[in-house]
Amino acid sequence: MNKLLLFCFLFPIFCFAQTKDEEMLKQIYNLSLTDSKAYPWLEYLSNSIGSRLSGSTGAEKAVLYTKSELEKLGLDNVYLQEVMVPKWVRGEKEKAYILDNKKKIEVPICALGGSVATPKNGISAEIIEVHTIEELQKLGSDKIRGKIVFFNRPMESNQIETFIAYRNCGDQRRIGAKEAAKFGAVGAIVRSLNLRLDDFPHTGATSYGDLPKNEYIPTAAISTNGAELLSKKIKENSNLKFYFKQSCFQMEDVLSYNVIGEIKGTVNPEQIMIVSGHLDSWDLADGSHDDGAGCTQSMAVLELFKKLNYKPNHTIRVVLFMNEENGGKGGKKYAELAEKNNENHIFALESDSGGFSPRGFSFECDESNYTKALGWKNLFEPYLIHNFVKGNGGSDINPLKSNKIIKVGLKPDSQRYFDYHHAANDTFDAVNKRELELGVAAIASLVYLFDQYGID
Amino acid sequence: MNKLLLFCFLFPIFCFAQTKDEEMLKQIYNLSLTDSKAYPWLEYLSNSIGSRLSGSTGAEKAVLYTKSELEKLGLDNVYLQEVMVPKWVRGEKEKAYILDNKKKIEVPICALGGSVATPKNGISAEIIEVHTIEELQKLGSDKIRGKIVFFNRPMESNQIETFIAYRNCGDQRRIGAKEAAKFGAVGAIVRSLNLRLDDFPHTGATSYGDLPKNEYIPTAAISTNGAELLSKKIKENSNLKFYFKQSCFQMEDVLSYNVIGEIKGTVNPEQIMIVSGHLDSWDLADGSHDDGAGCTQSMAVLELFKKLNYKPNHTIRVVLFMNEENGGKGGKKYAELAEKNNENHIFALESDSGGFSPRGFSFECDESNYTKALGWKNLFEPYLIHNFVKGNGGSDINPLKSNKIIKVGLKPDSQRYFDYHHAANDTFDAVNKRELELGVAAIASLVYLFDQYGID
Repeated sequence: MNKLLLFCFLFPIFCFAQTKDEEMLKQIYNLSLTDSKAYPWLEYLSNSIGSRLSGSTGAEKAVLYTKSELEKLGLDNVYLQEVMVPKWVRGEKEKAYILDNKKKIEVPICALGGSVATPKNGISAEIIEVHTIEELQKLGSDKIRGKIVFFNRPMESNQIETFIAYRNCGDQRRIGAKEAAKFGAVGAIVRSLNLRLDDFPHTGATSYGDLPKNEYIPTAAISTNGAELLSKKIKENSNLKFYFKQSCFQMEDVLSYNVIGEIKGTVNPEQIMIVSGHLDSWDLADGSHDDGAGCTQSMAVLELFKKLNYKPNHTIRVVLFMNEENGGKGGKKYAELAEKNNENHIFALESDSGGFSPRGFSFECDESNYTKALGWKNLFEPYLIHNFVKGNGGSDINPLKSNKIIKVGLKPDSQRYFDYHHAANDTFDAVNKRELELGVAAIASLVYLFDQYGID
Repeated sequence: MNKLLLFCFLFPIFCFAQTKDEEMLKQIYNLSLTDSKAYPWLEYLSNSIGSRLSGSTGAEKAVLYTKSELEKLGLDNVYLQEVMVPKWVRGEKEKAYILDNKKKIEVPICALGGSVATPKNGISAEIIEVHTIEELQKLGSDKIRGKIVFFNRPMESNQIETFIAYRNCGDQRRIGAKEAAKFGAVGAIVRSLNLRLDDFPHTGATSYGDLPKNEYIPTAAISTNGAELLSKKIKENSNLKFYFKQSCFQMEDVLSYNVIGEIKGTVNPEQIMIVSGHLDSWDLADGSHDDGAGCTQSMAVLELFKKLNYKPNHTIRVVLFMNEENGGKGGKKYAELAEKNNENHIFALESDSGGFSPRGFSFECDESNYTKALGWKNLFEPYLIHNFVKGNGGSDINPLKSNKIIKVGLKPDSQRYFDYHHAANDTFDAVNKRELELGVAAIASLVYLFDQYGID
């Protein structure tokens, strides 16, 4: 067949498929915006359960609640997957003061997740400001020993993608204390990873790596306004002292669960496509954006397929991972069991960038499947989904190994994410119903298309 | 020259231009996100001046403040343009009750802008629910006379573009009272134009058209939660009564001003490009999104060009229109004077859709200039501006007539706009600094490109 003939032959099929897909996306969006449980589920998770740090009663309740809600959807299978998770407890509310000669100025801090406590009465020491780990290393033990190190590199406000600004600053929080301890520091205070100036300290995981336990030093985040003030005071007085007190501690690992539900595929049930979020959150707030939104969106994708009476070719599974925030144990366990049970995952999507207006997807896959996805862009543009890029899928789906797998991250608008991320204001009122629901529809649409056309 | 030779000749010029433009957009975005006055200006307008309804002291203060801030920028010209504007005053806070047999249930209402007052002690009458003007007309005088009409058509939540949902519902607010009066209704209550369920009544202009003054009936908006409750109660009791009381009134027109500043063009100073917003707001809140955001963004575009020491080819003018909300007198006066003074406007952009993450532009122009703009899309995509569509520029620039003019509306993400629009929660804290600044950069980038390459 010559090319023209082939074109004439295939063109009507292509048009029919486009119309069918357009129609399906329309149904998906209509239903998501008019009759989805994502928002009431998120309300319950946020307002009736609250924070869900691994090992907490909140996390335990969230496991039972989401399992029971998935059971109501009439899925083919709903189950829990056991996983041992770390349990870290914040204890009493932290206290911190800038000690400016005789003046004691209180500043808002919160212990970083995984940090050790200060001695019972707190620590008071000279404080020294650095901006990078390299600067710390250059200063060396002479300048650092006995002091509190203050990491004060702000997130770059001129980055368009705020996650890049976050990545470029994250080392301070993740390894600042560990690095400072090597030079004899007695504590580490880290500027909150927040692009705006406000009074919320933002927690997040820190790691002591292979440091001997007796060398662990306490570390906390300070609000961005607090960091600005502290920096100003250090400039005025190079011998400035700082005091902080926290009583957090690490307990024994405890048993928890990933929550899983699935609709069996009708053609290739052994090929699995997952949509996911993480059920745990930090302890300072309700984790409504991080990642209640991703969990309820993922659940709502299966709810929507059931309501549309859609019979997928492949098995479509929702996975609510436990312990993304401080260990990633849920994601690792899921991947380990998938491998052990010879499960064949062909597609994994994670929504863990907040419940904001969806803008696109990041694809972690080969060229051929990326090209395939790009071919669907015109279907998404009426729904204001334009941003298809290559990039990371998500940290919980990262451990999944498969011969051939497409990993996808939902990319919502990221401008306000770090206003709330890991802070006390990550609450239900910060999530907009429509934005959450548009995310459900965007995910469901992509899953539908890959389910229809398979992966290359 | 054959096509290949022409291509070889032009390609390096094209590449050079792209690189130069890429570099300029980078500078524009960098500066907007690190050193713009848009946000502090908006803070002052919102928190120190507050609401700015035409003819109010707030509006007067805003004129003086923005003029004085523009004067600090070292522009070539800053001036006020006189315009007579309507002055409507809300008076005492409104009261409303559902009268359910012996129970009196208070519901949140606010008078619509331009409405007359109720009699001093309020109005109490049977209430009848309708969803469209047509339904009202079908019911006719028999069913309507002596009653309060309740317009309760909700905004369509399955519209992706919320402005379409707004447009499809707007008639209830704009002409509901006028139409109901024709059938002898004694009042009209209108469901707030808000996509979410909450307790904020949303005001906005209503018009009695050519109805004789003695036939005007009072009209108010009810919150969406109030509307849901009222509808439920009407279903339970078809003789339900409703009471409301408001004391608003229209005064004589007063003198006010459009605020204007400009940088003279170096090549074609007689050709004018404007960036604009409207300085007036409704009276219930600070009008931070509507349209403090558009005003401060427009001012910040000129601030940015001055800081970059950019010498435009054409004259670039910021116009802060007065009285968009209840009369559009500022826009009309500006266009009238432009025509009288033979001013040649080639480009007019309005930002009046909130200070949210910018997503694109709507172009009201001929095919050739639209194609030209589409050619620049690749320059905008790194900044997540993807949505170039044909559509309306904006209501203040609408009266501008010119032989050849490109009118443009900034299109921010619209999902949350109607949560705040014309309601008491349209306050400074609802605007995100980065989102506002990204809007400044998007506007400045488009102005720069049209300034460089002219219009066709």
